Amino acid sequence: MTAYDELMAFQRQTEALAQVAGRLSWDREVVMPRGAAGQRSEEIAALETVLHARRSDPRLGQWLEDAMAMDDVSHANLRLIRRQYERAIRLPAHLAAELARVTSLAQGIWAQARADEDVAAFLPILSDVVRLRREEGAALARGGDPYDALLHDYEPGATSAELAQMFGALRPRLVALRERALAAPPAPEITGTFPEGVQIALAHEVARIFGYDFDRGRIDKAVHPFSSGSGTDVRITTRTDPADPFNCLYSTIHETGHAVYEQGIDSAHRLTPVGQGASMGVHESQSRIFENQLGRSRPFTGWLYGRMRDLFGDFGVASEDDFFRTVNRVGRGYIRTEADEVQYNLHVLIRFDLEQALMRGDLGVDDLEAAWNDRFLADFGYAVDRPSHGCLQDVHWSVGLFGYFPTYSLGNVYAGCLHAALRRDLPSLDEDLARGDPARALQWLRARVHRHGSLQDPRATIIRAIGGEPDEGPLLAYLEEKFA
Amino acid sequence: MTAYDELMAFQRQTEALAQVAGRLSWDREVVMPRGAAGQRSEEIAALETVLHARRSDPRLGQWLEDAMAMDDVSHANLRLIRRQYERAIRLPAHLAAELARVTSLAQGIWAQARADEDVAAFLPILSDVVRLRREEGAALARGGDPYDALLHDYEPGATSAELAQMFGALRPRLVALRERALAAPPAPEITGTFPEGVQIALAHEVARIFGYDFDRGRIDKAVHPFSSGSGTDVRITTRTDPADPFNCLYSTIHETGHAVYEQGIDSAHRLTPVGQGASMGVHESQSRIFENQLGRSRPFTGWLYGRMRDLFGDFGVASEDDFFRTVNRVGRGYIRTEADEVQYNLHVLIRFDLEQALMRGDLGVDDLEAAWNDRFLADFGYAVDRPSHGCLQDVHWSVGLFGYFPTYSLGNVYAGCLHAALRRDLPSLDEDLARGDPARALQWLRARVHRHGSLQDPRATIIRAIGGEPDEGPLLAYLEEKFA
Repeated sequence: MTAYDELMAFQRQTEALAQVAGRLSWDREVVMPRGAAGQRSEEIAALETVLHARRSDPRLGQWLEDAMAMDDVSHANLRLIRRQYERAIRLPAHLAAELARVTSLAQGIWAQARADEDVAAFLPILSDVVRLRREEGAALARGGDPYDALLHDYEPGATSAELAQMFGALRPRLVALRERALAAPPAPEITGTFPEGVQIALAHEVARIFGYDFDRGRIDKAVHPFSSGSGTDVRITTRTDPADPFNCLYSTIHETGHAVYEQGIDSAHRLTPVGQGASMGVHESQSRIFENQLGRSRPFTGWLYGRMRDLFGDFGVASEDDFFRTVNRVGRGYIRTEADEVQYNLHVLIRFDLEQALMRGDLGVDDLEAAWNDRFLADFGYAVDRPSHGCLQDVHWSVGLFGYFPTYSLGNVYAGCLHAALRRDLPSLDEDLARGDPARALQWLRARVHRHGSLQDPRATIIRAIGGEPDEGPLLAYLEEKFA
Repeated sequence: MTAYDELMAFQRQTEALAQVAGRLSWDREVVMPRGAAGQRSEEIAALETVLHARRSDPRLGQWLEDAMAMDDVSHANLRLIRRQYERAIRLPAHLAAELARVTSLAQGIWAQARADEDVAAFLPILSDVVRLRREEGAALARGGDPYDALLHDYEPGATSAELAQMFGALRPRLVALRERALAAPPAPEITGTFPEGVQIALAHEVARIFGYDFDRGRIDKAVHPFSSGSGTDVRITTRTDPADPFNCLYSTIHETGHAVYEQGIDSAHRLTPVGQGASMGVHESQSRIFENQLGRSRPFTGWLYGRMRDLFGDFGVASEDDFFRTVNRVGRGYIRTEADEVQYNLHVLIRFDLEQALMRGDLGVDDLEAAWNDRFLADFGYAVDRPSHGCLQDVHWSVGLFGYFPTYSLGNVYAGCLHAALRRDLPSLDEDLARGDPARALQWLRARVHRHGSLQDPRATIIRAIGGEPDEGPLLAYLEEKFA
């Protein structure tokens, strides 16, 4: 066996164990008994200890030194393993285990605090999470920026400065667009109730249309929709609201975008570093282009209108054009995950700025709620009325995801670029969508993005797909055309 | 930290990882997408490699040497860790991983072969499993009996010779009792259909009555009922048959017995070796006493008859006495898991003898079907009509469980002993059961058996509970009184 072969055999086992950790998280979200939370945090910490020991195993350093890259794929695998190894040896094992244990517990405490509208109940454990992640960021950054060090876990190569510049260009135009869209006549509301079973059946149908392979996945219900796993076991979750079928439908299309990306990676890369999505930003570009640029387009909503009339009967919307406006309604609201395309990124930018301040020590957790509420009022023009509509609304910080939020908006920017390139290459896209058949668009995305996994870094992945440098221009042009 | 403290901290992580392996298996049985089987086998093999490395870690040897047992609990933990350590260092790591990988794959192949009634399709992988387990048995036994070495994984301290003697005493009296029971007038059959939702609701109700804590567990559907996990996450599965509510009901009571045992272990022992059920035999004694001695007793079935009439209306059984006979019907059949109390152990004894022959090399897998069919004809008086009614009916051998089957019958023997002791100590048991309230019986079992986990070896656990040596006498006396 060559050093490369030994390294990859070891690495495949590490990736398989990382998949196991993913299954444990899925289980916690979807099916775990409530009383098991404490024990589960010990299970996750034990697994994290094992993963950390493998990722920082001294043999990795030796293999990496001895291994020769024969081709692009082995070169990419070596690069990714080296990155993970260098990260792992900077992080003390006890900190890795402690982070896993504390964040697993913190999630339950956050959920209870949100249900009780009780910020104070969440702050002590949030303070622990912030402290541990700051320690981690400092250990990883070695004198560099601790926030950027965390950001690299989700978006390798990105910097907060570059993102701040991009988001700075987005923000005023989104604020202006939001005001114009809010001034437009209100879209018609849907009426009636939508049986859960029919919603779930439609979610399955639409997931299938968007290319989801049920032989290698499944859809379950969870409090918050998410996708989980890679390789041959990629699951998604959804939720239903009897008064609002769009919640289930569009969260399913969104998660299908994530899942179809993972399912579309060349199976030769399974359980190797190349066999994962390139980054959270690239991932989000897929979920968002599925959900928005394709799923909320005029032609696709035209098809969907007919399908929903078949399934639910008359629901108080008189025409395809009205339905398009209903699906793309811009309204007042507090919740990121319920926001329309125009306002979504404004929600993200709040979190991006606040979490940088938390990580850099410019903001204490005791001042988080006030800072959130001030910023929300400034951007949206009305005050947060309760914590679950404000700083307690998202799970992310409880589980230690600092540096993750900006990848949502980066993903939207990438989706804008990919959508422009897709329309350039596939002039008949609207005809396909009007038939409820995005197969050729999927083929384009598979060939341009999915297949390659992490063969290249995220930005390079997008550059190859669109044939140029990505920026916020296409997203803004698309939004302004659609909503102005 | 003392050596004992270091050892136990390490061991808790190992136990937490073993719980993770259990969750992966639950997932495979209950929710895993079909196409994920191959990747899952790699995940399980990776985890098994980690577990094996921890269980054979040289530090364990040193800690075990240095640690001092301060009390009964630490003494028991040291004994159990030493047993696991000595087992692990005898087993080569590559064999541990290969066994995990092959058995995970073999299960899927077995399931397909059974569906297709195709023994030949199963034999190649079964041959691999037998070869690997024989290798393992030889490595563990170091010149001793390889089958006994495997048996010790499930029933520490038991020997096949001792079991063969006990089963030899059971067999002729069960055959004789079977003939008498089959000659009795047939019990009335139930009629009608039993809605799945109502069956599941009744299963939940009965599990609760038998002490199952849903805050630390859940009930799902699976092809084969099983229980899974220990500590604060102990799950059970069941199945439903619209024409036969007893399938769901009694499999639930059975699995509740396993789960309530695990849930009843003193929480001070969580994630330590003492914090597990003492053995498969002791486990089965709990599931069987719940299912049979309590659940199929005349007073409890009297209560159940009323409850089922409330839920399902008239189902063609006219009285409590008739219902008792229906629930305890002895009939012709091929399937172990559907067998009544009289014939169940006869099914087990076939497997016990055949698997010993496979492990000792006296029987090749090519001759397994013929040997099974000959033996079945000899014991039951009619021929196996298809492989799924014969040697393909059980999952056990596909997943490498050689040495497991005899613990079912040992568990029945132990259940007989415990039941006799319980009746001696709780003269009002029948009155409780007639009210559908086994709480005091549960209290007795918790205090005598559950609470202690693996503090003592299995046989000693039973001796302490019943105040004497266990043997097959009470089981036979109970069965002959009930069925003759």
